[in-house]
Amino acid sequence: MTASRISRVVVTPVAFTDPPLLNVVGVHQPFALRAIIQIHTDSGTVGLGETYADEAHLARLGTVADVLAGLDVFDLNGLRRRVVDVLEDGGGAKVAGMLALKNPADVVLSPFEVALLDIQGKELGRPVSDLLGGAVRDEVPFSAYLFYKWAGHPGSDADAWGEALDPDAIVAQATRMVDAYGFTAIKLKGGVFAPQQEVEAVKALSAAFPDHKLRIDPNGAWTVGTSIQVAKELEGLIEYLEDPTPGIDGMAQVARQTDIPLATNMCVIAFDHLKPAVGADAVQVVLSDHHYWGGLQRSRLLGGICDTFGMGLSMHSNSHLGISLAAMTHLAAATPNLTYACDTHYPWKTEDLIKPGVLDFAGGSVQVPNAPGLGVELDEDALGRLHEQYLSCGIRGRDDTAYLRTFQPDFTPNTARW
Amino acid sequence: MTASRISRVVVTPVAFTDPPLLNVVGVHQPFALRAIIQIHTDSGTVGLGETYADEAHLARLGTVADVLAGLDVFDLNGLRRRVVDVLEDGGGAKVAGMLALKNPADVVLSPFEVALLDIQGKELGRPVSDLLGGAVRDEVPFSAYLFYKWAGHPGSDADAWGEALDPDAIVAQATRMVDAYGFTAIKLKGGVFAPQQEVEAVKALSAAFPDHKLRIDPNGAWTVGTSIQVAKELEGLIEYLEDPTPGIDGMAQVARQTDIPLATNMCVIAFDHLKPAVGADAVQVVLSDHHYWGGLQRSRLLGGICDTFGMGLSMHSNSHLGISLAAMTHLAAATPNLTYACDTHYPWKTEDLIKPGVLDFAGGSVQVPNAPGLGVELDEDALGRLHEQYLSCGIRGRDDTAYLRTFQPDFTPNTARW
Ligand SMILES: [Mg+2]
Ligand SMILES: [Mg+2]
Repeated sequence: MTASRISRVVVTPVAFTDPPLLNVVGVHQPFALRAIIQIHTDSGTVGLGETYADEAHLARLGTVADVLAGLDVFDLNGLRRRVVDVLEDGGGAKVAGMLALKNPADVVLSPFEVALLDIQGKELGRPVSDLLGGAVRDEVPFSAYLFYKWAGHPGSDADAWGEALDPDAIVAQATRMVDAYGFTAIKLKGGVFAPQQEVEAVKALSAAFPDHKLRIDPNGAWTVGTSIQVAKELEGLIEYLEDPTPGIDGMAQVARQTDIPLATNMCVIAFDHLKPAVGADAVQVVLSDHHYWGGLQRSRLLGGICDTFGMGLSMHSNSHLGISLAAMTHLAAATPNLTYACDTHYPWKTEDLIKPGVLDFAGGSVQVPNAPGLGVELDEDALGRLHEQYLSCGIRGRDDTAYLRTFQPDFTPNTARW
Repeated sequence: MTASRISRVVVTPVAFTDPPLLNVVGVHQPFALRAIIQIHTDSGTVGLGETYADEAHLARLGTVADVLAGLDVFDLNGLRRRVVDVLEDGGGAKVAGMLALKNPADVVLSPFEVALLDIQGKELGRPVSDLLGGAVRDEVPFSAYLFYKWAGHPGSDADAWGEALDPDAIVAQATRMVDAYGFTAIKLKGGVFAPQQEVEAVKALSAAFPDHKLRIDPNGAWTVGTSIQVAKELEGLIEYLEDPTPGIDGMAQVARQTDIPLATNMCVIAFDHLKPAVGADAVQVVLSDHHYWGGLQRSRLLGGICDTFGMGLSMHSNSHLGISLAAMTHLAAATPNLTYACDTHYPWKTEDLIKPGVLDFAGGSVQVPNAPGLGVELDEDALGRLHEQYLSCGIRGRDDTAYLRTFQPDFTPNTARW
């Protein structure tokens, strides 16, 4: 094999329609943004990556894209060094609306690393899971991801899912999603209504789906005291409680008072959070997410750390398209201790830019692609269409709070509010 | 690329002459044992691995070798699963004389994993370092590894290095080794004489080599009190103090009383030791060793853990041959935070079974091979010769204590003796 090197990198922001899903900081805007990375090599291979597309992130992606020419496609250490070097300062990185990171390097690195693994796999004739140690499962289980939601975006018709603002509607949403996808785990995005209504929703789900694994994630909407109270009520009903309260200290206080494992994708989102979290025994499950943990290889490292320090491992999702789903599926397939069903927003989207026929759900799981690389093919027409949509939609960053405020001017997104 | 699968595995024990090097548990026997792994694939590629060859370990290697046929050479997760499954019970693994591990899986896994990486690299036309994320350095610095020693094995002539039983002889040994290999770091294996003599030896080395990085490793021969006392005397003279006293608790007590980083390859030798060591802040540098950390990929995990939890990373060595040196060099080259010169016993051996021309030392460093795979070629004649030597030497396990007792019947190998 001749050494294959990066010749050029194309970063394309896209927008796809997103329903009005509610959460602790507001409501999803009419379009979700993603950036699509295409890395071209001098041997003619193209590798794909997908990430956030807020303007600050897009600017960083562009800065990195400009310094990658000539890099050997196997030189992942060299990729990281170039990313770190070019992002001169470690200023706060506001990514996808909710995360604040001391250092954006891993977030910026991620889609380029995925694209290089896609290239490696294509050139070797091997699926990406083989480059991560080999798939330990043929299919990856995902969870139904339920949201309180409005019927449609204000001023538009109701979407296909309709309104869900109470426990009955949540059970109806779950039923429809489980019927369509076969999920065996169900997660409710909470933090929208007072805790007691959300507890009732979980209880209703538990009654309707007694054999399903359940979770609730209020994104830190509760105080420590409320979290402990809710945990008592949900003991025996849920497999983990995700980010009931903000911060490592608060989570540690809750963890000491409940046997329900606490999960997080809020207080442990970077490698420098692991030592304090382990020291405080604050979380029992880490939700990995290759988009901010620095790609697939560094997500494997996170998996190994969880294994070593006795924490469970699950997987987080933001609104995403098929390239991300492929990457998530390969990573999950090759991570032995990823024993929980992964989150995905996939059922909520109606548009994609990969060619159909792969990544279909059956029995709640996605078959691991075994074609070379990620195993997905870009539909260039769809990419163009979603890029046009990005240009015309007017949204340049995720801001669920500002969007909600256009309808409820007094809305204040404070965590630990209940 | 067609899927390449394991067709057969050959495990060959070998013995090579070893000088009478002294340590806390005794003295090196006239021959050191290693097991050479050759994994053959259905595509005709052969991958190489090297490990310990104590009888219990050899038996486990044979057990694993028998269940590997058909395994895809990229399926490292599958390899580990087969190893774990076939080693039914987790009984204590006495490996290479000094280590006690709760679970032998990683030790047994290691040479097979290295051999599969060698095959992957050969089939892809890529050096093993590329499969580990890419070399971050072209050459890997090693340290001079000094030993107190007898002139020769009792009953034999003096070897080429001669006797070294006091500080002057240690400085002479260092001078000769530094002149021959260009090392810029020097480690003294201690635990042989009373601490004060060994402190004098370090001071003599410091005077003779003021610009070299120095270390001393008494293999836990000292009490906590003695360790603290020695640390005070050596402050400013050494870059780290290796295993002054046994156990995580003891090391933590010493660490609290000195600014010298404490290093270990004794109290943190498996993944389940990391959580207690981190919790106690017991060690500041972990000496990795792919032979017992489960191969190169899992040693990268160890590296990532050290990086994440703020510990330094160095590399440990037992008596070894060229296949191991190649694996160590690729691993060190691809591990960004391996910033200390690695240990190696290489200068002490006079025989090898790889073809010469690679892995030569210059300026204390070994150039990272850039040929496909490990970049070393087995000399089949030498393999046969060293296997004959294994058969005829009568040694079937490392036992430095029993060997020393044939000359000093009252010798008792107790750590924390001073
Ligand atoms: Mg969450
Ligand atoms: Mg040592």
